[in-house]
Amino acid sequence: MDSIFSIQILGNGSASPNILRSPSAQWIQVEQQHWLMDCGEGTQFRLLEQGLKKSKLNGIIISHLHGDHYFGLFGLLTSMSLENRSTPLTIIAPVLLKSMLNMLLNQGGYTLSFEINFIATDEVKTLECLYEHDFFSIDAFPLEHRIHCCGFKFKLNKTIYHLKPAVLEELNIPVAQYKVIAQGEDYQKAGQKPIKNDILTTKEIIDKSYAYCSDTRYFAALSDFVKSVDILYHESTFSEENMERAVQTFHSTAMQAAMVAKNAEVGKLLIGHFSARYTELDFLLAEAQSVFEQTAIAEESIVFNIEQSK
Amino acid sequence: MDSIFSIQILGNGSASPNILRSPSAQWIQVEQQHWLMDCGEGTQFRLLEQGLKKSKLNGIIISHLHGDHYFGLFGLLTSMSLENRSTPLTIIAPVLLKSMLNMLLNQGGYTLSFEINFIATDEVKTLECLYEHDFFSIDAFPLEHRIHCCGFKFKLNKTIYHLKPAVLEELNIPVAQYKVIAQGEDYQKAGQKPIKNDILTTKEIIDKSYAYCSDTRYFAALSDFVKSVDILYHESTFSEENMERAVQTFHSTAMQAAMVAKNAEVGKLLIGHFSARYTELDFLLAEAQSVFEQTAIAEESIVFNIEQSK
Repeated sequence: MDSIFSIQILGNGSASPNILRSPSAQWIQVEQQHWLMDCGEGTQFRLLEQGLKKSKLNGIIISHLHGDHYFGLFGLLTSMSLENRSTPLTIIAPVLLKSMLNMLLNQGGYTLSFEINFIATDEVKTLECLYEHDFFSIDAFPLEHRIHCCGFKFKLNKTIYHLKPAVLEELNIPVAQYKVIAQGEDYQKAGQKPIKNDILTTKEIIDKSYAYCSDTRYFAALSDFVKSVDILYHESTFSEENMERAVQTFHSTAMQAAMVAKNAEVGKLLIGHFSARYTELDFLLAEAQSVFEQTAIAEESIVFNIEQSK
Repeated sequence: MDSIFSIQILGNGSASPNILRSPSAQWIQVEQQHWLMDCGEGTQFRLLEQGLKKSKLNGIIISHLHGDHYFGLFGLLTSMSLENRSTPLTIIAPVLLKSMLNMLLNQGGYTLSFEINFIATDEVKTLECLYEHDFFSIDAFPLEHRIHCCGFKFKLNKTIYHLKPAVLEELNIPVAQYKVIAQGEDYQKAGQKPIKNDILTTKEIIDKSYAYCSDTRYFAALSDFVKSVDILYHESTFSEENMERAVQTFHSTAMQAAMVAKNAEVGKLLIGHFSARYTELDFLLAEAQSVFEQTAIAEESIVFNIEQSK
C-alpha cells in the first residue's frame, strides 16, 4: 500500500544561512492531501529538486513570521499563479501575513490566479482544531518564542475495509458492489435483508498523528499538546553547551526536545532547525538520545512514514 | 593586477522556477566596492556557494518589484543583521520596497543592526546619476516593463599612475614618497621646485562601463542609454519564435537584445533572464549572434572582467 501519511523534510536549518542546510520546510502527505509546513527561502526550488509538484498542494502552514520560516512563500505563490493554478489554496498563518502578501502582490502588479482560504492562528491559546477534512484534522497549539508562534498536529483517523474474497464469492455479491463495500457500506439487495459490512470485510483502523514544533523555548506544558503522537518534530537549534544562547533566543536544545518527547511519550522524535554553527550533527543526536532513544535527525530529502511508525 | 571592475553572475533565470537556473542576481566589484544587482530568491545561498562575503557589500540595487528580482532581499538583509553588520548599506530601488521591508521587519520583531541609505528610483525618467563614489558612478535609466523598472550603468573612470623606477632613482626620490606619487601627486621637497608627476609616472586611464537591463520590452531609445558601454547585460527571456509572448509580457527576445547592443555599439553583450521553457540556450545565443557577434551567455558563477574587455 502506498503511504497515506508521511512527511518529507525540505529544510532542517535555522535562521543563519548555511551551505549545508536549507531553512524550514516540510512536505506532508495525509490521505489524498498535500500540505507544506513552513516555507523558508528557496522552498520552491527544493520542491523542484525533490520532484514534488506544487500544483498538488492543498494548503500551506506558516508557524510564525520569522523569515527562515516563510520568506519562500511569496515566490512559491507567484510561481503557482504563473502556472495558472485555479484551485483555492488554504493558508494557515498569523493574520498579518495576509497584509504582507497583499502588499507585495499589489506592488508587483500581480493578481493571483487562485483564491486563498486564509485561517488565522492569532487567537490560538491552547490546543485548537483549525481544519478538518474527511479523515484528518489539523490542530494548532501555542509555542513560546520571541514572537507569536504555533505548533501543529496532524491527526489521521481512518478505517480501511479489507474485502474477504471467499465470503464475497460464497454470498454471490456482485463485483460491481465491491467498491462501496470497501468503503464500509453494508450490502443491500432489493427485497432482501442487508448483509452487514462486518461479515464481508476485516477492519484496519489507522489512528496516527504527527506534531511539529518549529521554534520554541522549553516549557513543560508543551508535552500535553503533543501527548502520544506517533512522530514529533521538535526544533533543536542548540546543544546543551549553548544553553545560554538558547535561553536568549527562545530556542531549545536537543536535550530539551528529547525531554518533551519523553514526557509526551511520543513514538519517535525528529530533531531539526539546527544552528549554522554546527557542521556535524551526531553529537546533537547523541545528546537527545541520552534522554529519548527513539530520536533521529530530520535529514533533508528523507521521507518519514507516519502510518507505519510504531 | 587584480580585477577592479568585474561582474559575477549569480542567476540567469526568469520568473518561473527552473531546476537549471537561479533568478536574477549579479555581484559587481568596482574599485574597492561590492554591489549586488538584483536579489532573486536564494541569492544569499548563491553567495555562500560562490564564497562571496555578504559583509563586503556596499550596496544593493533592485531594478523593479517583480519577485524574481528581489524576493531574496529580505533574507539577505536579516542574515546580515544576524552577523551584526554595523556598516550602513545603500539600497537603490523603488521607494515602496522600503515600506515592505519595514513591514516584514516589524512583524518579525527584527531591528536591523545597520542603517540603510535608501535611494529611490521612482522619479527616474531619463539617464540620471544616482550615486557617485571616488572613481565610479551609478546611473539609472527607465526601462519599459509591466511595472516601473530601471536599468543601471556603472561607470569607472580612474587613472593609474605606473611609477618609472629608473627616473625615481635618478632623481633620488625617497621610497617613502612612492605611494603618494602613485596616487598622481607631484614630488615636493622643501625649498625646491616641485617635480611634476608626469615625469615620474606613466598614466593609464581606465574608462570602462557596464550596463544592466533587467526586464524590458524592446524600444529604440534604449540604445542611447547604454551607448558604447563595454559590457551590456540585456534580458533575453524569449526567442524570436515566442515573440508574441515577449510582447504580452513586456520582455525581449535574444534578437532584440542584440539589436540594442548593435545600435548602441557596445563592446560585448551578455544575455540572460531565460524563460524556464528553454533547457538548451545555444539557439538563443545563435539568434543574438546573428545580429551582434560579440554575444555570450551570462552563465551562472562566471566572472566577466570589465576593465580588460575590449
